[in-house]
Amino acid sequence: MRDVSIVSVGQIPVEKKSSLNLRSMGEAAIAKSLINIDPEQVDALFVGNMLSDELQGQKHLAALIADTAGLFGIEALDVNAAMASGAASLRMAYLAVASGEADLAIAVGVEKMSDGVPTAALAKALDAEKEVADGATMISKNADLLRLYLKHFDSPEDAMENFAVNAHRNAKKNPNALFFGKTVTPRMVRKSRIVHHPLKLMDCSPISDGAAAVVLAPTQEERAFSDKTVRILASSVATDRFSISQRKDPLWLEGAYLSAQKAFRQANVNLNDISLFEVHDAFSIMACLQLEAVGFAKQGEGWLLAKENEIRLNGKIPISTFGGLKGRGHPIGASGLYQASEIYLQLTQQAEKNQIKRPKVAMMQSIGGAATTVISHIFGN
Amino acid sequence: MRDVSIVSVGQIPVEKKSSLNLRSMGEAAIAKSLINIDPEQVDALFVGNMLSDELQGQKHLAALIADTAGLFGIEALDVNAAMASGAASLRMAYLAVASGEADLAIAVGVEKMSDGVPTAALAKALDAEKEVADGATMISKNADLLRLYLKHFDSPEDAMENFAVNAHRNAKKNPNALFFGKTVTPRMVRKSRIVHHPLKLMDCSPISDGAAAVVLAPTQEERAFSDKTVRILASSVATDRFSISQRKDPLWLEGAYLSAQKAFRQANVNLNDISLFEVHDAFSIMACLQLEAVGFAKQGEGWLLAKENEIRLNGKIPISTFGGLKGRGHPIGASGLYQASEIYLQLTQQAEKNQIKRPKVAMMQSIGGAATTVISHIFGN
Repeated sequence: MRDVSIVSVGQIPVEKKSSLNLRSMGEAAIAKSLINIDPEQVDALFVGNMLSDELQGQKHLAALIADTAGLFGIEALDVNAAMASGAASLRMAYLAVASGEADLAIAVGVEKMSDGVPTAALAKALDAEKEVADGATMISKNADLLRLYLKHFDSPEDAMENFAVNAHRNAKKNPNALFFGKTVTPRMVRKSRIVHHPLKLMDCSPISDGAAAVVLAPTQEERAFSDKTVRILASSVATDRFSISQRKDPLWLEGAYLSAQKAFRQANVNLNDISLFEVHDAFSIMACLQLEAVGFAKQGEGWLLAKENEIRLNGKIPISTFGGLKGRGHPIGASGLYQASEIYLQLTQQAEKNQIKRPKVAMMQSIGGAATTVISHIFGN
Repeated sequence: MRDVSIVSVGQIPVEKKSSLNLRSMGEAAIAKSLINIDPEQVDALFVGNMLSDELQGQKHLAALIADTAGLFGIEALDVNAAMASGAASLRMAYLAVASGEADLAIAVGVEKMSDGVPTAALAKALDAEKEVADGATMISKNADLLRLYLKHFDSPEDAMENFAVNAHRNAKKNPNALFFGKTVTPRMVRKSRIVHHPLKLMDCSPISDGAAAVVLAPTQEERAFSDKTVRILASSVATDRFSISQRKDPLWLEGAYLSAQKAFRQANVNLNDISLFEVHDAFSIMACLQLEAVGFAKQGEGWLLAKENEIRLNGKIPISTFGGLKGRGHPIGASGLYQASEIYLQLTQQAEKNQIKRPKVAMMQSIGGAATTVISHIFGN
């Protein structure tokens, strides 16, 4: 098995509505990632996307984007794990390079949510027969978890507030973020409308369009492509029981726990080594539960890290350092590649106003469904 | 990179309408593949499916099937390449084992087409903006190719007839085939109704339900799982220009050519070594064009191999040895895993009435869209 490095990344700004069509968004992110790399060297393309089926009436997206990007003849496959599809495509590109089957592979995530109303399509991440048939949506499931959490741990009503505040603090300085340049105060978070009790609008990541790409090469050959590279120290996927109702403790993300533990073993690092953690804060409650499942906080105390500002850029465990899903935006299939791109910028000291001090090891997790699938990656220099 | 072997397979019979729901079909194929293997040893599951989004309103299928099959906690991802999704999941399982990331991985393909009308969903394999908007379907695209072929090469109207006859000859003896026990005569093929001129019903594979699973392990450890194993000598994916209209020669399958050439190099075998070839005969014309692109026939002469009965079990290059997509049935996402399962049975001398004599090396190709994505695998002992 070969060691694998990120040798380049490419992001297009997250927008409410992109002027590009879906394939051109993918093409644009790929083009940015290949600015200093000869496209002829690309062996394989793995595409993360969740909603093109419904919103663009398009399957077979990887082959379409490869063609649009002028990457003729190459391997191109679509990889999905609901909302973790971006991270799933990163995992597949990792396997292709690690196995020796590809010498240069791109993982691109792309989603254009403005082409329709995505709510029903997003709910397909849940059990169609047993959950969706009863009216469940991603929002209702996360509202259930938040309600349960606040009650079970007797947490204050505003427990999750600082997750959104922190995300927007960082998004404000990220030119690729949907909320770039925008101020979101604690009061705005607190006063935001209830979407699904007790979930407020500011507990939810925004619907948006975006695309990001990450280029992987064998670590041994990384210098041929760039002098700014980041090693993938671990890549792991774990699943929990499919539905929350099947789990012993609905407030414990077993998938996040298992996936993190696998990744820690593979990377041979532990919690204390992690300089920053890109979480899947599609909903604040998920960020909180991830911090607990991965081990940064005891159960019931994840929100305290936010409350005490330990998730800020200069805190104990910075999260969502470029705004996270909440502030950067959550173009579903693209989010995992935005996370990886942001970590690349952090570890290569290119994060500018969002740079955290001397990061050595960074972690990301992406979540599919109601924390059913959790994909962890750990990166280092 | 580790060598990889198939250590077990599991097929459920292809049916017009399965009594099981989608997830249970997947579970059933997995259970059959694990009869002699401890499920606790399974590290990863890769699922090939094309239509669950539309027909079952379900995404996130890999995690759902893992849960249904009792494979708790494992890695589970969906892999897609339109109609080649089954082969794509095999490729991903191969990468997972080859890289060392999984010691036992299952690729399962599953499709339940009887839950709705799949035509529109199938067309999403084509370009939604440039082809489907003009009324194109998979059937119209294949009819175009057939019309062009017959004209360009001045072939007889019944040129493709023996592809269907051969497929049904073999399907008749395959208990897992939709057409098991059924006689289809050359006259029945000839007299079948025109679906889309000049394409006849008997030039098209039938809509059906099915699931098949293949279990992969490192070759070095294959004996721990079975004494009947088959090595994967090559696994490769190539893409052509996305739309037929973009290609220099619409009758030349560049993706099939590139993918086959890569696979031959990887396996270190050549055409003459291939004992049997499982083709993607969703439409007879595709089988014909594949035989030409891979090199078994000159351009314009693929149909002669069928005409001269050289594609039969005792011919020069047996194809569709268990009935192919035409006779076994083509439950889209499952077909690639049926192909791999059938090759496993051939190479381990368990093909019973469909056994070809002393096969050494076998090849399969799966096709996504209008031959846009072609996935090749080569197997040997």
